Amino acid sequence: MINPFDDTYFMKKALQEAEIAFDKGEVPVGAIIAVENRIIARAHNLTECLNDVTAHAEMQAITAAANFLGGKYLHQCTLYVTLEPCQMCAGALYWSQIPKIVYGASDVERGFRAMGTTLHPKTKVVSGVLEEEASNLLKQFFIQKRNLN
Amino acid sequence: MINPFDDTYFMKKALQEAEIAFDKGEVPVGAIIAVENRIIARAHNLTECLNDVTAHAEMQAITAAANFLGGKYLHQCTLYVTLEPCQMCAGALYWSQIPKIVYGASDVERGFRAMGTTLHPKTKVVSGVLEEEASNLLKQFFIQKRNLN
Repeated sequence: MINPFDDTYFMKKALQEAEIAFDKGEVPVGAIIAVENRIIARAHNLTECLNDVTAHAEMQAITAAANFLGGKYLHQCTLYVTLEPCQMCAGALYWSQIPKIVYGASDVERGFRAMGTTLHPKTKVVSGVLEEEASNLLKQFFIQKRNLN
Repeated sequence: MINPFDDTYFMKKALQEAEIAFDKGEVPVGAIIAVENRIIARAHNLTECLNDVTAHAEMQAITAAANFLGGKYLHQCTLYVTLEPCQMCAGALYWSQIPKIVYGASDVERGFRAMGTTLHPKTKVVSGVLEEEASNLLKQFFIQKRNLN
């Protein structure tokens, strides 16, 4: 049987968040947290609007999901994020004990893999879901930014 | 000439924040951010009260300091924190480009040193300031917690 609620479905929702960030002049990264095929948190990068390095999409999604659940552990959740999490976000995900992280584009310079950040032993990672779409949006953002300066 | 505004002075202020966390039933960690001998942010761990793994003292202090400064980089700031930052907080400090971090007690299990988190190349670290006081407060907290359960 076809499951419409697969990783691609939720990553598309994360990409929609990344597009909202793009329109605000933010580095376009979006995140979704889902539980049992239900979205409980949506967020996009707001570091420029909020003047706050901690306002990555994942951080806001973690806070929003915990608020929704009424508990700080995201035990049955999956995070979908368009770009590989950095060490700050991976560190927060470690504390959340989230069982699954799905990301789109890799960040070979500042992603948690290159930085050697430790995830929680219970956390599984899926990478490359809608990677090209996420990556193209980021490239488009940086090209546009360069042309404006 | 004696400088009353040394690392010990500011760490005492961070310890006062840790004591506030203790009284709230939070793991007692406190943080201060100072610029030119002026405190611009005070915070303590609120992960239990807020049900949020991202509510470490350092994270809140970073957000508060950036808000005070009107910019996301903490270029002339020093962070004082009673316990060695974890990988999430060290990751946030990396993005903030903060030039100096001073911490009290070491966290040999989950501190950024053991976890191998990368700090910004401009960041210098001083450790062990009022280490015993910070460590004793943490021990007292965990002993009390064990006796209550």
